[in-house]
Amino acid sequence: MEIKTKQDVRDMARGAAFLGVGGGGDPYVGQLMLQQEVLKGRYPEVIKASELADDAKVLSVCGIGSPPVLVEHLLSSSLLSELMDRMEDHVGYKIDALISAEIGGLNSVMTLGVAAQRNVPLVDADGMGRAFPKLEMVTFSVYGCAASPVLIMDELGNSVIVNARNDATAEQICRSVSSSLGAMVYASLYPMTGKQVKDYAVHDTISLCFSIGRCIRESRDQLDSPFQGLLALLNRPSENRYCKILFDGKIVDLLHEIRDAWHFGTITLEAIGNPNDVMVVEMQNEYLAARHNGNTVAIVPDLICILDAETAEPLTGEMLKYGQRVKVLGLSAAPIMRRPECLKVFGPAGFGYDEPFQPIEVLNQ
Amino acid sequence: MEIKTKQDVRDMARGAAFLGVGGGGDPYVGQLMLQQEVLKGRYPEVIKASELADDAKVLSVCGIGSPPVLVEHLLSSSLLSELMDRMEDHVGYKIDALISAEIGGLNSVMTLGVAAQRNVPLVDADGMGRAFPKLEMVTFSVYGCAASPVLIMDELGNSVIVNARNDATAEQICRSVSSSLGAMVYASLYPMTGKQVKDYAVHDTISLCFSIGRCIRESRDQLDSPFQGLLALLNRPSENRYCKILFDGKIVDLLHEIRDAWHFGTITLEAIGNPNDVMVVEMQNEYLAARHNGNTVAIVPDLICILDAETAEPLTGEMLKYGQRVKVLGLSAAPIMRRPECLKVFGPAGFGYDEPFQPIEVLNQ
Repeated sequence: MEIKTKQDVRDMARGAAFLGVGGGGDPYVGQLMLQQEVLKGRYPEVIKASELADDAKVLSVCGIGSPPVLVEHLLSSSLLSELMDRMEDHVGYKIDALISAEIGGLNSVMTLGVAAQRNVPLVDADGMGRAFPKLEMVTFSVYGCAASPVLIMDELGNSVIVNARNDATAEQICRSVSSSLGAMVYASLYPMTGKQVKDYAVHDTISLCFSIGRCIRESRDQLDSPFQGLLALLNRPSENRYCKILFDGKIVDLLHEIRDAWHFGTITLEAIGNPNDVMVVEMQNEYLAARHNGNTVAIVPDLICILDAETAEPLTGEMLKYGQRVKVLGLSAAPIMRRPECLKVFGPAGFGYDEPFQPIEVLNQ
Repeated sequence: MEIKTKQDVRDMARGAAFLGVGGGGDPYVGQLMLQQEVLKGRYPEVIKASELADDAKVLSVCGIGSPPVLVEHLLSSSLLSELMDRMEDHVGYKIDALISAEIGGLNSVMTLGVAAQRNVPLVDADGMGRAFPKLEMVTFSVYGCAASPVLIMDELGNSVIVNARNDATAEQICRSVSSSLGAMVYASLYPMTGKQVKDYAVHDTISLCFSIGRCIRESRDQLDSPFQGLLALLNRPSENRYCKILFDGKIVDLLHEIRDAWHFGTITLEAIGNPNDVMVVEMQNEYLAARHNGNTVAIVPDLICILDAETAEPLTGEMLKYGQRVKVLGLSAAPIMRRPECLKVFGPAGFGYDEPFQPIEVLNQ
């Protein structure tokens, strides 16, 4: 895959919004940064994990904070550059590649921007294949790669290095540091080897993300419905990938609640012309569960996306409006994400649900 | 001065409670730690700042968090030892001496314990001559010595290194890290040179603290009233030191409020037999202002101490009870603390008061 034009950058950002499943931070800010690099002729190089040496040095970079604050501040590419310099100083080596911890939302597009800026390849993989609200909700952490040391910087040049005994504690510390510095900071974290990336990452998610973004645009232009293209791309049982339109209707109720620094929400949808046919989508930063007339039809870590019914543009929680016509789409998580050890951290139990995970293809047989 | 017996340790802790002016954290926990060292024959060495080489390397150590949590956890001397090891590693040198940033409350007694444990001298000085609630409220900071790098550790071994652009930001970050780690952490901070200590510290406060603690005990045993001894020690106009008993009465009202992680309080006292003779003491962690029948008779940074009327035992905000017989004592702050640049940070304006600082000796002419 090659990201060389403004259209490529927009496709990538659209895919990232799709995989952001309602949250993940607005990819738009990362898009502007990546576009700057591309317009200067600095194209990001995306490599397969298999191309990494086993002892290759790999790092992640991400934003930590509040998405609305991010959009007000925009992204400083000089800050990201200094962040990476300081992190390389701190760990004591130059890195061979970057990896995005989170493909959904801002972080993947931003990491592509950093890769282009620093002329370091980006691995075609991430740690979740979607977006999640907490630092420790990545396969890296489940399989014993520590987030620490985490080097945090803000745009004023304040920096903090966190060495936590476990990644849940790293998350707590980073979240509170972010709050105390105005709710938007950037971090470099999850130092890994090439071998660890090969063994524990969710693979090929950068290229999947790009394909999704491109597919929505192309099928919008060329097909009767963009959803037709999306389903052809994403519903491939032979490749263990399942995708389904779970509901088609309009938003009749929206409940947003900011509690303990999280965005909780409940979205109620009604089928057009049938007020008794109802879907409820529950969110905590990201969409977590979809219930159709009381029956669960998709649950975390499987992906739930809400898309504009006409354009198939992915909608984040903040973009939803009363009366809006949308389709709810369910997509199976990557097989590694459904392993028992992963479900403990970011399955239903990780979000306080007292119900087991059931795959979308089983729930919708 | 020599601290070699359990009685010496108790005297030191009593003096630290006095100079804690209602806050500063309970010296008792530091007392237990220092006592352990003394009982093992490891006596802290206290040196004058003038004995330091100009290029001597000096560090501070302190607790950051909530005093009630501290008392539940007690103090781990192995944690403090590892904290100092890590800080020396981080700054890249072995230190020549320790200095307490805060003489009042826990921190000075704890720093004596660390000095004894590591066999490093403690400078007879501190950064405020009392207790204050914020990291940046020290003469060091006023005169340009930065708190950063601040190395924070908790008892589980989590650690955080803060490099803030200014000390008020360091305070914000450290406070939130402390919250996220259970509200009690330890920190090493304020790296300084011998020259900086000589120029910017409040001097001879360790020996003053020890004298106060000993004086209260001795005059309790030997004189009609312990206050007689205290006044003889602390009211020495020829040395620019003024002390006065501002009020003698009983507590008739107590208002405590925990807001924005601070302990605000208002203490109302009545003279015995004269309900129209009233004193109000206002506190934010420490006692900040004393108003006698509506007139200010002492205000921060001058010291306001509330002592048990019989034993002259210093009372912290948490120890006060309805009906208690107490005396309120006012003591002039060290001359350096009253300079305009200092008053901006920790004079009345630093605590949101819209009134100028007036020295206790002027207010009570």
